[in-house]
Amino acid sequence: MFSKNFLKKISSREKVSKTFLEKQLNLARIVIPANKCRDMSSPVAIGEGLKVKINTNIGLSTQKTNLNSEIKKMREAVRCGTHTVMDLSVSPNYRKLLKEILALSPVPVGTVPVYEVAIEAEKRRENFDKITFDDIYQALKRQAEAGVDFFTIHAGILKKSVQNLIKKKRVGGIVSRGGALLAHWMYINKKENPLYANFEVILELAKKYNITISLGDALRPGAIADSTDSHQIDELKVLGELVQRCRKNNVQVMVEGPGHIRLDEIPANMALEKKICHRAPFYILGPLTIDCAPGYDHIVSAVGGTVAAFYGADFLCVVTPAEHLRHPSLEDITNGVIASRIAAHSVDVLRFKDEWQKNLSISKFRARRDWRGMFNLAVDPKKAKRYRKDMSSADKICSMCGKFCSLKITEKCHFLK
Amino acid sequence: MFSKNFLKKISSREKVSKTFLEKQLNLARIVIPANKCRDMSSPVAIGEGLKVKINTNIGLSTQKTNLNSEIKKMREAVRCGTHTVMDLSVSPNYRKLLKEILALSPVPVGTVPVYEVAIEAEKRRENFDKITFDDIYQALKRQAEAGVDFFTIHAGILKKSVQNLIKKKRVGGIVSRGGALLAHWMYINKKENPLYANFEVILELAKKYNITISLGDALRPGAIADSTDSHQIDELKVLGELVQRCRKNNVQVMVEGPGHIRLDEIPANMALEKKICHRAPFYILGPLTIDCAPGYDHIVSAVGGTVAAFYGADFLCVVTPAEHLRHPSLEDITNGVIASRIAAHSVDVLRFKDEWQKNLSISKFRARRDWRGMFNLAVDPKKAKRYRKDMSSADKICSMCGKFCSLKITEKCHFLK
Repeated sequence: MFSKNFLKKISSREKVSKTFLEKQLNLARIVIPANKCRDMSSPVAIGEGLKVKINTNIGLSTQKTNLNSEIKKMREAVRCGTHTVMDLSVSPNYRKLLKEILALSPVPVGTVPVYEVAIEAEKRRENFDKITFDDIYQALKRQAEAGVDFFTIHAGILKKSVQNLIKKKRVGGIVSRGGALLAHWMYINKKENPLYANFEVILELAKKYNITISLGDALRPGAIADSTDSHQIDELKVLGELVQRCRKNNVQVMVEGPGHIRLDEIPANMALEKKICHRAPFYILGPLTIDCAPGYDHIVSAVGGTVAAFYGADFLCVVTPAEHLRHPSLEDITNGVIASRIAAHSVDVLRFKDEWQKNLSISKFRARRDWRGMFNLAVDPKKAKRYRKDMSSADKICSMCGKFCSLKITEKCHFLK
Repeated sequence: MFSKNFLKKISSREKVSKTFLEKQLNLARIVIPANKCRDMSSPVAIGEGLKVKINTNIGLSTQKTNLNSEIKKMREAVRCGTHTVMDLSVSPNYRKLLKEILALSPVPVGTVPVYEVAIEAEKRRENFDKITFDDIYQALKRQAEAGVDFFTIHAGILKKSVQNLIKKKRVGGIVSRGGALLAHWMYINKKENPLYANFEVILELAKKYNITISLGDALRPGAIADSTDSHQIDELKVLGELVQRCRKNNVQVMVEGPGHIRLDEIPANMALEKKICHRAPFYILGPLTIDCAPGYDHIVSAVGGTVAAFYGADFLCVVTPAEHLRHPSLEDITNGVIASRIAAHSVDVLRFKDEWQKNLSISKFRARRDWRGMFNLAVDPKKAKRYRKDMSSADKICSMCGKFCSLKITEKCHFLK
């Protein structure tokens, strides 16, 4: 599937042996999203035994349609350390943006191709409920040819899931856009989910372009009151079946997960996915541990993401402070990506020598009040420098403690390693 | 120690029975910091079986000496939901600020009285190493009379701790200001810690004014490389002994804790304190799980604080984005307090019906896109409203998904509870 040189590059970036990488790849416990038609400077592997990875969503909305803003966000997300980006545009000019992102992004690019189908239907002033699998296939094919590296496919929500949702209602309903479109389609047409019904056709295409399938969780809880409910678990079981079908067809696959999870249910959620989905890489959104912090959901997500990564999540989708409120600004992207990096790093530092070493170095610079050294290793040097702007980098104190700096006071006591 | 009416007020605020509150108080597993000389509108109980509490540090530094800014910060911290404030001023005009804070704060006020001793020595152009216990006692007495509700007393760092630190060096050394002053005093004078040597005298004073002793952890690690090291544990053992001495003298006591803890060592740290310190309330700073996020340490602290609270921490000290960089701004205080509230709420929601109910309500408003309902229950209504400023509260969508809002798409599908 991949050249020896390519795998060597990945294993050196990941600080794991090539043998380990190949073993995990063969067992399908890791994926390397990389469309055959696209080259990128910073490919990435995601899954068990590797560092925790981060994805950042960008994209135009029906209200916010400025292409340059989204390209800037992609660049900022990369500066802040995202490993992949997803273009989730739902605006008529989506095609132009995706083309630019695919040309400019150094990291893998993912999409939810059903959005394209929805926008095109909207353009034709047609209801999404009128679309056919052929419409979906055209979008998949066009995006595959354009070079998209991974597709979110919401094939786990079934006709019976929709009936179940009506029988056993939820606090948060459906909070997946792709899931909602398909649920409504099934609600109206009383037919099976076209993505599920035609899954083999999708796999053929994915195989041809080496596109990684990211199995979307249309039924992820949108409120912690719905955390780990039967709808979520029923869908997870379908996703487990689809994982096996992907593997049988030599298609790389990962599984998407919540969303909103009670703090005490995060470990079980990670274990369940690994069990039911045969240790496929787990790609989660958040998770959020509470619902009452709009404006600060990046922090809630760092909390949930850390615990989730510790218990086995492989890939964290960035949640920005704008979540639940608005289309994110450039600053929201910065804050969101850094929050996710904190989650990933809190776990990586326990598992990877180079991460531990880097963290140790910044501590040593801190103990010696070497500001330049600290800035170089900081998760966001720009913000750290900005916060020091009223002090010179030669000052051996900060404005917090001033001359009562504990490190300055004990400077001559020989306490430091 | 407390009137029946006062305990009734506390038990109703805490949503626990008066019997439970009294039992915990008798077992000294909770404290209610409230100086006999001071009245306050929002007293609070801290400890086992109660909601997780939050403290915010304010105070003048040698570089930042504006009184009004600090009063504004106190008010903002209270608006954001802090349960106590500590005035940690180390500036010559500290006395005026403390007087104002004690007059204006609706919540308990704590201090580190040794700072006053250090500032007064500085005013006399005298070295801190020249001070005697009598100087310390004068400061304690003045602050007790002024109405301070809890004192941080760094009595756990001993003469031998200083020798141990020189023998077995650390990456982060000492990061406690009070601890550093006392360590240097012992390093120079080769005598025992005056706070430890005269602990009974301090207890007499504390008892007289009903001041809660918060046993400071002078040897808390200042880098995760030092997490759970022998210096930290040795001091914890001394604090455990001091807890018993406080209890024998009918003085309320809590124990302060790290600081910086590896994520995987947080559960053990909580269990150790509860064991070694005889289930005294645990008051922690952070903890931070990584060292490389200056500018975002409030997020790191929310991560560590959540896990710590889940495993038994009772009281979280706010860490602001300015930590390790500068004296915090008003905005830093907002972000810090909210981050700690997220940590506390992530745990409280699992343990207290009213917190669960509140969280459930906001989810229901969200599913119905009732913005006003959401704002009223948000952890920071001000920021949530600001983020919605380009949309009217009547709009049933946000600028993220626009017309492709999953909740709008499935509005008529009868999925919602």
